[in-house]
Amino acid sequence: MKAPGEVIFSRGELPESVHRVHVAVVNAAGQLVASCGDAALVMFPRSSSKPFQAIPLAEAAPDLSSDELAIACASHAGTQRHLSVVERLLRRAGLDESALQCGTHAPFDPDAQAQLVRTGTPPSTLHHNCSGKHAGMLLTCRLRGLDLTSYTAAQHPLQREIAALHAALGAVDEVRVGRDGCSVPALALPLEAGARLFARLAAPEGPHEAALERVFAAMTLHPELIAGTRRLDTELMPRVPGCASKMGAEGYFGLALRDTPQGPLGVAIKIEDGSERARAHATLAVLNALGVPFSPELADLYPAALHNFAGYPVGEVQTEIHLA
Amino acid sequence: MKAPGEVIFSRGELPESVHRVHVAVVNAAGQLVASCGDAALVMFPRSSSKPFQAIPLAEAAPDLSSDELAIACASHAGTQRHLSVVERLLRRAGLDESALQCGTHAPFDPDAQAQLVRTGTPPSTLHHNCSGKHAGMLLTCRLRGLDLTSYTAAQHPLQREIAALHAALGAVDEVRVGRDGCSVPALALPLEAGARLFARLAAPEGPHEAALERVFAAMTLHPELIAGTRRLDTELMPRVPGCASKMGAEGYFGLALRDTPQGPLGVAIKIEDGSERARAHATLAVLNALGVPFSPELADLYPAALHNFAGYPVGEVQTEIHLA
Repeated sequence: MKAPGEVIFSRGELPESVHRVHVAVVNAAGQLVASCGDAALVMFPRSSSKPFQAIPLAEAAPDLSSDELAIACASHAGTQRHLSVVERLLRRAGLDESALQCGTHAPFDPDAQAQLVRTGTPPSTLHHNCSGKHAGMLLTCRLRGLDLTSYTAAQHPLQREIAALHAALGAVDEVRVGRDGCSVPALALPLEAGARLFARLAAPEGPHEAALERVFAAMTLHPELIAGTRRLDTELMPRVPGCASKMGAEGYFGLALRDTPQGPLGVAIKIEDGSERARAHATLAVLNALGVPFSPELADLYPAALHNFAGYPVGEVQTEIHLA
Repeated sequence: MKAPGEVIFSRGELPESVHRVHVAVVNAAGQLVASCGDAALVMFPRSSSKPFQAIPLAEAAPDLSSDELAIACASHAGTQRHLSVVERLLRRAGLDESALQCGTHAPFDPDAQAQLVRTGTPPSTLHHNCSGKHAGMLLTCRLRGLDLTSYTAAQHPLQREIAALHAALGAVDEVRVGRDGCSVPALALPLEAGARLFARLAAPEGPHEAALERVFAAMTLHPELIAGTRRLDTELMPRVPGCASKMGAEGYFGLALRDTPQGPLGVAIKIEDGSERARAHATLAVLNALGVPFSPELADLYPAALHNFAGYPVGEVQTEIHLA
């Protein structure tokens, strides 16, 4: 294993907390071309799987609009705009939110959350960040005549197909299966294979070429649907030309990069401790290391300088990521 | 350096995220008796310094009630009960919340936070988790005729005295200085020296014996003031006989343990990546390793089993901490 990268949160002149980072970069031919840390680390992409979990939907519903496909790839923030697209997907399936088996959590968007608190309204399954994925899975089942009540089970035909898709696109024999936060199977594969999935999204080919092309287009046309205001995917995609990105829980991040000096690339990043705060800093370091240009606004959105509640500077974020 | 401990969050049968843990254990004579990871790691205890930052207050105000002294040692949750004690401290100094230079953040207590959102009330400096410490520092300055407007500056006589106290009780030549989240100096010292501070709190002696005894008594009499409902200090202290504990930001934790098979001990724990979620699990493993008895309720409050939003089991927390 190569040395992991590090994202260091310092205070004054001392390092205070250190996040270890593993990175794999794969080219359009599926070859590992750069890495740091352990590219063989078997890891759950979690929500970074969503663009690939949406392939059966794209293939079953050729008339789906790009925003409907985007919300199926999203970890959305539970705003009214997000909910309205999820509801449209459900209506296409002749269903409502009661069919969603994702569970319930407060919306990620602070204003949407405050609105629920102010009005004393409990969040519904629609607010769950995965509700678009679940609505998309239900619509796929409806269109293909598959069972609608057992769709989250690992043995359901749709979930078996999604696992096989991950193995095929990742070029691995085996995909390990756990259960995700939203109850569908979480699929685990080596970090290198995770990067290979995103390389295929950057350079679609093979039997799912058309679906991958539509997923890439949907994500990059609607970055505001993929996450939400001030969240990484939504801020990153408009500022990195030719980039579709998808965050996953526990510090996973996948990027499909079409315009790099090395041609199309797929990148998978895992923050070893699952931290969310290190992800953007690690990502900008990886983009720099790969020579991928991005808008300088992005560095302003994720500044190295750290300030406290009273606005005083207290430290900085140092990123040590050396791809070999 | 010995191998760090690990707190592993697994999913299905695979490790998903790993937190590295450093631990130092010091006896009443100030000797390092057990550790894992790097006991020499120079680290900011952050709010784990509060029991020691309160020593000048305890000495300047012998008539202070135990709840007033406790709130000065607290990272409180901003409930009405917490705020009322802070306000009492400020009134003793002839001041109000406008004198506090801690800044402002939403209260940690979810009900207190929701109440502000429902009523459209912005949080005040009183809600800052450090407002009790700041009120205590202001009262100390008032009682000793020190300047009230520059009390957060590293060169203020009170802050210099607190830094000297840390060096003396920690038995180190030098204390490194940064700025804390609430703008007072954050003091850094080796993890072993941090444990030595807590060993002195467990077994008070020397020129500050009486103040340390009062601080220990205040913390253990009022665990509900030190943090808040469902927060570690508040849950831990009533369930570990003879224990005063104090959380610090970025995964620091200090424990003064009076009743252990090895006599009084001080413990300092640092989660390398600053994670909060690993702290309780690491602490229970350290208590077990030291043979310190605690109520089985505590293990129920911080269970190893992990469940998702829909209530399904998805993984578990594994703790590998071997003190040598």
